[in-house]
Amino acid sequence: MVGAPLNKTSLPSANGTRTTTTLSSDSVLALNTGDPTMFEPFWQKMGDKCDVLIRGSDLMSYYSDKNNVCWFLEPELGDAIKRLHGVVGNAVTDDRHIVLGTGSTHLFQALLYALTAPAAPEPEPVSVVSSAPYYSLYPEMIEILHSGLYKWAGDAYTFNKDGRPYIEVVNSPNNPDGTHREAVVNGGKGKVIYDFAYYWPQYTAITSAADHDIMLFTLSKCTGHAGSRIGWALVKDKDIAEKMTDYIAISSIGVSKESQVRAAKVIGVLCDGCENVGLAESENFFEFSRNLMAKRWQKLREALKQSECFTLFKHPREHCLFTGEFTKTLPAYAWLKCKEGIEDCNEFLRGLKIVGRGGKAFGVDPIFARVSMLSREDEFNQFIERLVVATKGISNGH
Amino acid sequence: MVGAPLNKTSLPSANGTRTTTTLSSDSVLALNTGDPTMFEPFWQKMGDKCDVLIRGSDLMSYYSDKNNVCWFLEPELGDAIKRLHGVVGNAVTDDRHIVLGTGSTHLFQALLYALTAPAAPEPEPVSVVSSAPYYSLYPEMIEILHSGLYKWAGDAYTFNKDGRPYIEVVNSPNNPDGTHREAVVNGGKGKVIYDFAYYWPQYTAITSAADHDIMLFTLSKCTGHAGSRIGWALVKDKDIAEKMTDYIAISSIGVSKESQVRAAKVIGVLCDGCENVGLAESENFFEFSRNLMAKRWQKLREALKQSECFTLFKHPREHCLFTGEFTKTLPAYAWLKCKEGIEDCNEFLRGLKIVGRGGKAFGVDPIFARVSMLSREDEFNQFIERLVVATKGISNGH
Repeated sequence: MVGAPLNKTSLPSANGTRTTTTLSSDSVLALNTGDPTMFEPFWQKMGDKCDVLIRGSDLMSYYSDKNNVCWFLEPELGDAIKRLHGVVGNAVTDDRHIVLGTGSTHLFQALLYALTAPAAPEPEPVSVVSSAPYYSLYPEMIEILHSGLYKWAGDAYTFNKDGRPYIEVVNSPNNPDGTHREAVVNGGKGKVIYDFAYYWPQYTAITSAADHDIMLFTLSKCTGHAGSRIGWALVKDKDIAEKMTDYIAISSIGVSKESQVRAAKVIGVLCDGCENVGLAESENFFEFSRNLMAKRWQKLREALKQSECFTLFKHPREHCLFTGEFTKTLPAYAWLKCKEGIEDCNEFLRGLKIVGRGGKAFGVDPIFARVSMLSREDEFNQFIERLVVATKGISNGH
Repeated sequence: MVGAPLNKTSLPSANGTRTTTTLSSDSVLALNTGDPTMFEPFWQKMGDKCDVLIRGSDLMSYYSDKNNVCWFLEPELGDAIKRLHGVVGNAVTDDRHIVLGTGSTHLFQALLYALTAPAAPEPEPVSVVSSAPYYSLYPEMIEILHSGLYKWAGDAYTFNKDGRPYIEVVNSPNNPDGTHREAVVNGGKGKVIYDFAYYWPQYTAITSAADHDIMLFTLSKCTGHAGSRIGWALVKDKDIAEKMTDYIAISSIGVSKESQVRAAKVIGVLCDGCENVGLAESENFFEFSRNLMAKRWQKLREALKQSECFTLFKHPREHCLFTGEFTKTLPAYAWLKCKEGIEDCNEFLRGLKIVGRGGKAFGVDPIFARVSMLSREDEFNQFIERLVVATKGISNGH
């Protein structure tokens, strides 16, 4: 799942459009969402390779393939997704159904429905848990409609299951802190959703091809095309895939075909680059994006080195099957912890005109806050400049 | 709202893709959904006028316009929607917020949330009603998650409101029967959603510019681009528009940008055609589609003229502000009523290998069934041929 625009956070009115703006030291830096605009330069560099032309009479029907469980999935996108997982080696696609959603957010809700609406419904809502710090949108998505099928039951570590059915969401690498996660509730009646939004080589070592029954992925955090709203689930059980498809049908009658065709193209070019099909080394997207992430993390660690204000979590190096090397973990978010004397990390950041997202939204203490590392270059540089100032104790006053 | 794929109806495995296939008299005709493929020939005829080219680095951000209530709406699509309503004259857009959804189905759910999740929630779910025959997806959409905020309460005509809050959905022209509708529950505590999916000149006379607080539209039934999944709401109240935007954000973090850009282009070409900006008369989409609908309805009425099996509802002619003429109502669906001796219209159609949707799904007697009039030409012609055979009493046996 993604680091989504938190609708309850008021967004700054500056920098409204997708064009790069000139930031001043006085601008509000909106780093509360995981808008992955840092990847734009790579795709600009690709020139016309990813061009997609759509004609007036293309893609008009609701249907893409009536023979497929997920009848609104364009076959070329299904093929591209399988190829991508094969190239990266991060997930097994054999004997899986691909279910498409308008982002993985949409699929998460489809899964809640599919896993809790059996022939004979449970007498009370099924508990859904995730270990803290958990992705801040999980509780919101689960609670928004006061469903009688499922309910948010908080931190998986403190969940008392009492022998009843439950769902655990495992987000790995985890949003917000980048850690590798496993299920923590042990129980025969539990079902596990693996949310692999960030299980891509620019963020983490690919340690094995994930082989779970239910796995979620999103284009937004893989290639950076968040505006396309393309997510997919790899699902072993046909009944669950069918129920998910039913949910997507009832909630939006499928997924935009234009974005599917475009996603297929972008993924194809990405895979060609990784496989070096007649291309320069620099056309490997994951190499480009990993290098960029590494530079940003280095700048962040340097800025915080002598900090009186923040500390960062340290991640172990791991062997990556994709790069063939021991690699650093380079999370999509800085998960900042304030040092003694500052009680509310997000409030402190606001004093620097940096909009992050506070620990409470993730089920933990406000001494933590999450800040996106995926912004455009000028925004990231401003973020670093302001942290450096903060370490000198000049700016705060909050 | 649209005539959606009814997920519980098994779809025939033939004719799986969007290419036109050769039908035989033995093929199953899937006319249970309102897939608007009949409009493809017009857009084919437009050649490259509607071409949209999307480059690899376009449209990557979640955001389209942070200054707008609906921050994921591309400004060019907002402008195109306003122009379209201006050209057609079917709705007032002044002083309205445009909220975008992945089809109007998605917006319907956003509205249910926005209208029932106030600061202090009601002690029990708010009743949602619509006068029968009502669009078959309303009950499914409302009931799917067993929400504590709202519940389906059936036919508006028989609703006992008891002074409590309620929502009435008015679908005009109505799916399935094409009639013009007004709200039927009179009560101060009610809110009304106007679903204008079919309020376009190819289906009905444009009798006035609708000026209600909450109005839903969809591209699918306007231009025929159902695969794009673009719907919009025109909403007077800013709070409601904001809550709807929150719902779309939490359920799918916005709407595919590729489909937005393409919808803007298609709508622009359609408006140019209507305004005759240097174009031939035949490039007026509504003229083309109205003529096609009229021919189909004539064929249908002729086929049923001596029918021993079916009757059709008769619609009055009305003065259309768009064409400037008194025009026939040409609904998107044939709402067939069986004559005496046949109890289940849909079952009878199945005997002809025609998949329709039975009256029960619309809250009325099974002597009714709905059949799409929007299919491709060869499918429509097969439909007519089979009706002619049926009237001769040859085929049924069911």
